[in-house]
Amino acid sequence: MIEQRKLRVAVLGGGSVGSQVASLLIAHGDELAARAGAVLEVVGVVVRNLDAPRDGDIPRELLTTDASALILQADIVVELIGGLEPARTLILEALNSGADVITANKALLATHGPELFEAAEQVGAQLHYEAAVGGAIPIIRPLRDSLAGDRVSRILGIVNGTTNYILDRMDVEGDTLENALAEATRLGYAEADPTADIEGFDAAQKAAILASLAFHTTVPLEAVHREGMTSVTLEQVVSARKAGYAVKLLAICERITDAATGVEGVTARVHPALVPLSHPLASVHGANNAVFVEAEAAGSLMFYGAGAGGIQTASAVLGDIVSAARRHVAGGPGVAESTQANLPVLPMSSVTTKYQITLTVVDEPGVLAAIATQFSDRGVSVEAVSQSVRDGGDEARPTATLVIVTHRAAESSLAATVTALAASPVVSSVVSVLRVEGQ
Amino acid sequence: MIEQRKLRVAVLGGGSVGSQVASLLIAHGDELAARAGAVLEVVGVVVRNLDAPRDGDIPRELLTTDASALILQADIVVELIGGLEPARTLILEALNSGADVITANKALLATHGPELFEAAEQVGAQLHYEAAVGGAIPIIRPLRDSLAGDRVSRILGIVNGTTNYILDRMDVEGDTLENALAEATRLGYAEADPTADIEGFDAAQKAAILASLAFHTTVPLEAVHREGMTSVTLEQVVSARKAGYAVKLLAICERITDAATGVEGVTARVHPALVPLSHPLASVHGANNAVFVEAEAAGSLMFYGAGAGGIQTASAVLGDIVSAARRHVAGGPGVAESTQANLPVLPMSSVTTKYQITLTVVDEPGVLAAIATQFSDRGVSVEAVSQSVRDGGDEARPTATLVIVTHRAAESSLAATVTALAASPVVSSVVSVLRVEGQ
Repeated sequence: MIEQRKLRVAVLGGGSVGSQVASLLIAHGDELAARAGAVLEVVGVVVRNLDAPRDGDIPRELLTTDASALILQADIVVELIGGLEPARTLILEALNSGADVITANKALLATHGPELFEAAEQVGAQLHYEAAVGGAIPIIRPLRDSLAGDRVSRILGIVNGTTNYILDRMDVEGDTLENALAEATRLGYAEADPTADIEGFDAAQKAAILASLAFHTTVPLEAVHREGMTSVTLEQVVSARKAGYAVKLLAICERITDAATGVEGVTARVHPALVPLSHPLASVHGANNAVFVEAEAAGSLMFYGAGAGGIQTASAVLGDIVSAARRHVAGGPGVAESTQANLPVLPMSSVTTKYQITLTVVDEPGVLAAIATQFSDRGVSVEAVSQSVRDGGDEARPTATLVIVTHRAAESSLAATVTALAASPVVSSVVSVLRVEGQ
Repeated sequence: MIEQRKLRVAVLGGGSVGSQVASLLIAHGDELAARAGAVLEVVGVVVRNLDAPRDGDIPRELLTTDASALILQADIVVELIGGLEPARTLILEALNSGADVITANKALLATHGPELFEAAEQVGAQLHYEAAVGGAIPIIRPLRDSLAGDRVSRILGIVNGTTNYILDRMDVEGDTLENALAEATRLGYAEADPTADIEGFDAAQKAAILASLAFHTTVPLEAVHREGMTSVTLEQVVSARKAGYAVKLLAICERITDAATGVEGVTARVHPALVPLSHPLASVHGANNAVFVEAEAAGSLMFYGAGAGGIQTASAVLGDIVSAARRHVAGGPGVAESTQANLPVLPMSSVTTKYQITLTVVDEPGVLAAIATQFSDRGVSVEAVSQSVRDGGDEARPTATLVIVTHRAAESSLAATVTALAASPVVSSVVSVLRVEGQ
């Protein structure tokens, strides 16, 4: 039998994902070698503390604290440290030494992606990052390869499992946001400091990565409009369901034309939105993730699965390791990241969306006309209005609830309308303003 | 500016997909060149009749009837003729000349896949076939690359849009199978001769392709157990919904252990099945396709989208063309198909599934016990029984309907049980026997 080629794999990071990746590489060695066309030898696992307890079965002698020394021995480097530094420096060291790099580090990719892709291209190495978005859900490769001949027009993604768990629990169990968050923390879905999830920072990083990939254009993290979901109330979730919607925190990437300037470009944003119950994203429950892609020729596609648990992320990382190994075996440089389209990245003010506005209004003749005028005066077109029966106020001044859904409107026009409504004598209060997506 | 590399693309077949692929390659030339790193020049489109009317804007001078001559000029050959011959011979000619080949030909891959993959590997070319299953839904690349480090345990796929349209219409509109088929034909979802779709031949080809890919094992078409959906009645669909199920024609690929022999292997089968309404596949409506994948580390994933329309298939083909072009630009041979696992392909008799059996029984004391005994005597364990109120027969011998769901059982045990039930004096008739999947 011919001796099989051997490829040396260095794992940076001995946390949950790193331990599982190293353990599975060792445990499934023969199987993975057959698929990769080369033996994948784990040459070391870089940890901060050699004596810390860790998951999985990693032989003690593989543990090291010297990342730079280990990188020099490796054909494939797996970065699972997280954070910007030293991850960035170590990845650059690895790429410059000619190693292929696999990372799940969304913060780093969203912040320093172009620098890393450039470094990989310079030496003909390749940077893989299937695990950075959606855990084990294959979304990076489908966008980069399968849809490479198509034109993606829009991505709507539920890319943060923690916030989907919280919103789904509010919807299904009737929990308040505080209680649902407490439950998410208890179950380990939310971290001790949940800011990155609930304020949308995590989703914004993923939006930057998805938009860059889908539109072949570098979309910097700073260009992603971000609103968290801490302002979503149980009342909003309950009313949404009655009106035929689920509330989801969405990462939205769109190719649009600015109505004022005629400039065609791309946008990325993260905010809570109403999704019609008939839309496939409305059925994504618990901590699951899903990415809905609309493309010119392919039509609508959806990719669905568990979010980023340790074992799911390990699955995606192992797939990337096998892909990298196959390329090493085949020879030839890696495929460079495609950012040749260089479309302008447009600001949030270029975006138009539908809105649902809930108002408490004085229940008397002429009110609807007065309110409709506030919309039409600012060029916002109304798609649907529903008015409840008298449900508040007092005998002298009874009130009712009015729910208005607009056609697509610019944020500035909508904001001006809401300001005018709030000041109107027939409006008691503006209860809620939410964007509507997926229609 | 540096002159960009040029790659010559030959399109075999000027039908709906071929015309759209050629037209889009020409219309989106600059955009695709930027993504691929090379100009993709269409050197010709092979047609049977130069004068036939066709879709899209293909310059007349690109049309030719001489496939072999065109192949010799091409770096990338796109086979969209369909059928076994001359497609097989032309693909072999192309691979042997060193060209990468893109095909959407599921019949050919399911029948002659190993020969074609072998030919590609010999010369270091690559055979791409993302369009062969699920139209534009990326499923080939996710299975081959993204999940290459994981262990797939099961695939449940709605991979035939025609039959899903028919079954969904029976469910949603209450149409009979005949009427739903007529409507599918009218809308162009079903062909004049719908045999390949409704008898499951098309789905069986896709099952062979998916099983081969998922389990790194050659699964020949003959090894796929196939049952069509022509025996599904409106009554079954209506009763299924009442009991909490949708009826779907599924392609099912499993890694299982034969209970009798202890042999671990793989199976592939196509048949109608009950899917719980809570399962994501139950919500796949109309002519859409979806592939549900269960893997050891990744957990459950679903890939969803439109089935194989002309434009959707063109999207997948164009993605493959860009991938092939990137490899040409990078250099190095293609990645060989992974079939190194060589697991045994097990027969249908190794498969166990749950069953739902609907019986009309004599409504008198002791009947349930008599029937339960028929199951237990053959080692079939009952999970749930529901009995309707008296709904038939006459005064002297009233009857009721009994719906039994079993735990997983072997087909042979179930068949023996059904035979015994049919002969039982307390059973008026065996109304329906359906497998239950996705639970």
